[in-house]
Amino acid sequence: MPQDLAIVLLSGGMDSCVTAALAARQHELALLHVSYGQRTAERERRAFEQIADFYQITRRLVCSLDHLKAIGGSSLTDDTIPVADAALESPEIPASYVPFRNAHLLSIAVSWGEVIGARKIFIGAVEQDSSGYPDCRQAFYDAFQRAVELGTKPQTRLEIVTPLIRLRKSEIVRRGVELGAPFHLTWSCYRNSDVACGRCDSCVLRMRAFAQAGVKDPIPYVSDPGPGDGT
Amino acid sequence: MPQDLAIVLLSGGMDSCVTAALAARQHELALLHVSYGQRTAERERRAFEQIADFYQITRRLVCSLDHLKAIGGSSLTDDTIPVADAALESPEIPASYVPFRNAHLLSIAVSWGEVIGARKIFIGAVEQDSSGYPDCRQAFYDAFQRAVELGTKPQTRLEIVTPLIRLRKSEIVRRGVELGAPFHLTWSCYRNSDVACGRCDSCVLRMRAFAQAGVKDPIPYVSDPGPGDGT
Repeated sequence: MPQDLAIVLLSGGMDSCVTAALAARQHELALLHVSYGQRTAERERRAFEQIADFYQITRRLVCSLDHLKAIGGSSLTDDTIPVADAALESPEIPASYVPFRNAHLLSIAVSWGEVIGARKIFIGAVEQDSSGYPDCRQAFYDAFQRAVELGTKPQTRLEIVTPLIRLRKSEIVRRGVELGAPFHLTWSCYRNSDVACGRCDSCVLRMRAFAQAGVKDPIPYVSDPGPGDGT
Repeated sequence: MPQDLAIVLLSGGMDSCVTAALAARQHELALLHVSYGQRTAERERRAFEQIADFYQITRRLVCSLDHLKAIGGSSLTDDTIPVADAALESPEIPASYVPFRNAHLLSIAVSWGEVIGARKIFIGAVEQDSSGYPDCRQAFYDAFQRAVELGTKPQTRLEIVTPLIRLRKSEIVRRGVELGAPFHLTWSCYRNSDVACGRCDSCVLRMRAFAQAGVKDPIPYVSDPGPGDGT
């Protein structure tokens, strides 16, 4: 029996990489990558292509949302707002929040999915063990699912799947290791595109996850002690 | 008391023009126009700018969603699918349906609204007296509203307003006339950018609306009898 077609939103970070690894077990994949004028867009795009090559997926869609940069309001898309060091205990939504970003990503996935006949859309959102972005909550995906059912053709059947949403980041690392996910090809840093800064929210969440999982993170960090580099 | 800021989705067609006219009575406006690779994009953009000039609104955002053309699946964005003549009685969703398009437009409006502090988003969708697009139904907007509440910051308050959704198109014409809406600046045709074809869904709905309202449509149509033009 042919496998159902599933779209995976693949940013190139560790969560979306593990999501692709999970989805690949049971589905034929189509991979979607969206740049939105964020600082590290080019680096993330490279991670996307390399992970897609790793899984030998040829069905790819790469989109660019220039208006999210024009709209700004986030340290990721507005160069005048600095990317802060991690403050994971703060109850505030961090300045790296890109307003309503995931609705844009899902909308693209839904439009594409409706045309190519996909049945599922996988997104690697993480709710609890994360930065607290509102558009990473299961309740948001439930509401969006309803909008998809009402806003597409009657014959369209597209289910939004969030396989990681309740996991701790360390559990995501362990699942990725079990599945052979290519963590060495992923990129998470919000600040840099050459060596990960090790201090932004995204780096700190990732480093903590690997440490708690007892797994060595294969990518280098600025803070790694290395020959001629002690910064 | 300063007026609340409202975003109006202004395609440049008759419905969005009347929506802007309605919103302008009670709100400070910010106008959003989105091109998505549709055939008449340039013409619609011109209508948008002229209507925005008419209302002297300087706060404008113009976006281009090239991926909706890449995704295709609609006669408006895929040049290999012809724009059909109107078949308004058909129960089928017409080929001009752009998959999940209005979710993209709303997502942009929400992101922008969250950053500029808008309180309302006006969209001129029409449910009953229309082509039957699923993303023009009130139920879709209700579901999307819920996704907005859950997917944005707690302090964000953005209400999606659909003032025309239950109106007949002829009632929209009458409202527009009462409000002095600049119908002469609007563009509705799906096919042409010079003289409206008078045969596509959008033209036929518009012409019928003006006829039923007993109002002369100020824009010219291919089928108009005119000097040296009887086609």
